[in-house]
Amino acid sequence: MHKSRLAGFIIDCQTDDLAAATGFWSAALGLKVDAAAASELKYRTLATAEDQVHLEVQIVEHPSRVHLDIEADDIEAEVRRLEKLGARRVGPVSTWYVMEAPTGQRFCVVRVQREDFAARANTWND
Amino acid sequence: MHKSRLAGFIIDCQTDDLAAATGFWSAALGLKVDAAAASELKYRTLATAEDQVHLEVQIVEHPSRVHLDIEADDIEAEVRRLEKLGARRVGPVSTWYVMEAPTGQRFCVVRVQREDFAARANTWND
Repeated sequence: MHKSRLAGFIIDCQTDDLAAATGFWSAALGLKVDAAAASELKYRTLATAEDQVHLEVQIVEHPSRVHLDIEADDIEAEVRRLEKLGARRVGPVSTWYVMEAPTGQRFCVVRVQREDFAARANTWND
Repeated sequence: MHKSRLAGFIIDCQTDDLAAATGFWSAALGLKVDAAAASELKYRTLATAEDQVHLEVQIVEHPSRVHLDIEADDIEAEVRRLEKLGARRVGPVSTWYVMEAPTGQRFCVVRVQREDFAARANTWND
């Protein structure tokens, strides 16, 4: 048995100017930039309310896009569950796993991100 | 003066099988499919809580991707605000407006989608 749910969305930007990319999306969405992790070189978090989806702006080398993250308390079990639904493993990166949906979008399975995970995530019988 | 905020995300799927695409994303995210608008040919809404971002699965002809929607009570004023931030007009479609961010992602400015818009959206002085 494990749990998972939608964690949030990452705005992947093919640029070397993280400050400019973050500035645009922060102003466009009217969300402040979270001061935490300000030393990170590749991403910034946009400050959404605690009970809302996470939003991050990230520098990438592939073409710009938006991808979603699924948070799970057992990444391997979640990857197996998604495979049974038709998703394809792309590969592990750091602490997360990149997947591709049968409809073609890349997305990630990540560790638990949000505090209300235990109370509000979906429970799956493995 | 007008208001806007992040409305939600659209999972654009290059497929002619809306049921299969919706089935995957509903199961992957553990979100039921909203029965409303079930007669629509091109999209289905995933049932998120009222105070959460909207999520839709949509059939498209371009390659699959995920895009975000900004809801606004004055679409033209919001498009102008976003232009000043560096976004580019792509063009109007039905009741919404397609834009391209300076970081390359397409996104849409749409009419007010969610009930708590007036209380929680950002206010901009035009």
